[in-house]
Amino acid sequence: MPKINPYEVEGKIDYNKIVEEFGATLIDDNLLRKIKHLHPLLRRHYFFAHRDFDKVLHYHSQGNKFALVSGRGPSANMHLAHLLLYNFNKYIQDEFGAFVFVPFSDDEKFMFKQELDFETVQKFAYENALDMAAIGFDPKKTEFLFDLKHMNQDLYNLSVKCAKRITLSTVKSAFGFSEQNNIGSTFYPAMQAAHILYPTVKYGLPSLVTVGIDQDVFIKVTRDVAGAFKLPKPAALLSRFMKDLGGGTKMSASKAETTIYTTDSDAEIKAKIMRAFTGGRETVAEQRKLGANPDVCSVYEYLTLFFLNNDFEVENLRQECKTGKILCGECKERLVCHIQKFLTDHKKKREKAKQTLHLYTKTD
Amino acid sequence: MPKINPYEVEGKIDYNKIVEEFGATLIDDNLLRKIKHLHPLLRRHYFFAHRDFDKVLHYHSQGNKFALVSGRGPSANMHLAHLLLYNFNKYIQDEFGAFVFVPFSDDEKFMFKQELDFETVQKFAYENALDMAAIGFDPKKTEFLFDLKHMNQDLYNLSVKCAKRITLSTVKSAFGFSEQNNIGSTFYPAMQAAHILYPTVKYGLPSLVTVGIDQDVFIKVTRDVAGAFKLPKPAALLSRFMKDLGGGTKMSASKAETTIYTTDSDAEIKAKIMRAFTGGRETVAEQRKLGANPDVCSVYEYLTLFFLNNDFEVENLRQECKTGKILCGECKERLVCHIQKFLTDHKKKREKAKQTLHLYTKTD
Repeated sequence: MPKINPYEVEGKIDYNKIVEEFGATLIDDNLLRKIKHLHPLLRRHYFFAHRDFDKVLHYHSQGNKFALVSGRGPSANMHLAHLLLYNFNKYIQDEFGAFVFVPFSDDEKFMFKQELDFETVQKFAYENALDMAAIGFDPKKTEFLFDLKHMNQDLYNLSVKCAKRITLSTVKSAFGFSEQNNIGSTFYPAMQAAHILYPTVKYGLPSLVTVGIDQDVFIKVTRDVAGAFKLPKPAALLSRFMKDLGGGTKMSASKAETTIYTTDSDAEIKAKIMRAFTGGRETVAEQRKLGANPDVCSVYEYLTLFFLNNDFEVENLRQECKTGKILCGECKERLVCHIQKFLTDHKKKREKAKQTLHLYTKTD
Repeated sequence: MPKINPYEVEGKIDYNKIVEEFGATLIDDNLLRKIKHLHPLLRRHYFFAHRDFDKVLHYHSQGNKFALVSGRGPSANMHLAHLLLYNFNKYIQDEFGAFVFVPFSDDEKFMFKQELDFETVQKFAYENALDMAAIGFDPKKTEFLFDLKHMNQDLYNLSVKCAKRITLSTVKSAFGFSEQNNIGSTFYPAMQAAHILYPTVKYGLPSLVTVGIDQDVFIKVTRDVAGAFKLPKPAALLSRFMKDLGGGTKMSASKAETTIYTTDSDAEIKAKIMRAFTGGRETVAEQRKLGANPDVCSVYEYLTLFFLNNDFEVENLRQECKTGKILCGECKERLVCHIQKFLTDHKKKREKAKQTLHLYTKTD
């Protein structure tokens, strides 16, 4: 059985099964037809499931505003999968005029990870925020909030209200907490619920959350709380995971060797990609003859998720791979080139973001 | 077996046994001799136990400042036992020049009591604060903090730090929480610890807490946390309970019939005292012959704790009671007269406090 919850993702995942188990809904063509400019990550089902996204689209089509909530637990530097998510968030802002709220749960990371102190989580929060500011969100429609720096009465009080509605029994079964967890960790789901409902309570905007499927349980808990408060239940767009470079299920910031950080140098990028797990064969001759497997290949995944916006190009690459026309080394070089270029540009924007970051926080 | 914890006090209590069980220390004459002006509540062992109060006295004798922390959970109006405590706190401020910090845990009361909403706990917090301001603390050396109104980054972050050090298992055994408690209630001990350590972390003042013995477990938990942070462990003066008017162990603000609120009218005071439980006999004749029992008498308790500052007067009353020289009706009338006079004066000061309350909060 695969394990999948906010604190653990393990094993081979059948995404369709999970959606059914979690009680979310698969995103189908019918839903996608309602969107004017379809983002590749929607078209290619990286975001493959949702909760009430149809309602959000309807609400928006009536001329109403909504907020996108997409939080970040700053326990490490950002990697490519994070950038993918926040690039997508920028698209949601552009396409729907959404207000983007990014809560940084530095408090959570401090409480969950024995080895992290305030200084470290706050440093990561700052570094992560630079990556986000580099993406170019509209400062007038964007708010970053660092729990350990910007905790305010509205958010604290909202977390207290949420906490009253969530029992220990609920969080234990939902998140797998034990008696040895600290009382901050078990409280945190209330703060997360408050993060999600913050734009609704403070600005009157219903919330849409973009998040990995492993975090869906937070959405479920928050939807229950919102129901009790007679607030609109937060909607969600749920993504599958981005493979790590070792072929593992989910890129993780804590595994440096199989992760591309936004701050990696050209040399690091090259070294990591050249070592990456692919769907290739043992020998060139074999691969030419039998073809390779793009479905398990991390290099194919990154090329197609990030860099090939044209679906024909993707299909072309897929056929070349499966028929042995292209070798893994070629794909790797292509990917190295793309990532180096992309991150060189990103790093420049990231440097400039040091001057603009304050525009995204209300109280700095 | 008597039950005694922050959420339940039941049964006949052997205070000496409790002190031993809790690991606190009885206050003895040796300790009391070190205090210049001895308050009656110390001399008469209403405050009967302590933790490290000897260290506080020594620290003070070296010319150092300390803070007195004495919080209030505002779930009802204040009653006489509360006034007794805060009058004593005023004495500590006067005698030792202590900085007085009063955190109002309106968040706690909201989370613990299903029926209380924000408006109600905040109204009680305001009403309770008026009682305290009426006592006349020095505004320059006093700070009131309402969690739901003044939560600030320092306090929130301190609670997060404390939370990391306290496991679910600890609060379950210390406070008797179950799976059905909400995650706000189980988090609250971290906020309480933060309240206690706030003057130490923010102003560099070691903390002394004045509190009922039922709350001692909060002190114990906080002392452990302080130890882990290499901060001075908070000291405590621990009081026994003030009887309720029905002869019960502890006056409780939730039992209106056996409690004198600071806002009771003269008629209410009279009605409640005249119905009070005493140590008297069935008939006058019997009482004249056999005498009564002051040790179980709520009227005797209130007279001696509040109104008879002179120890000879107390001893005199005790003898008159035990030998049947005085009848319960006489004591009751005497007490009614004292309380009415005392509360008439208090209510005037309380009314004036509406103009001065803001002096006690840093951010209003």
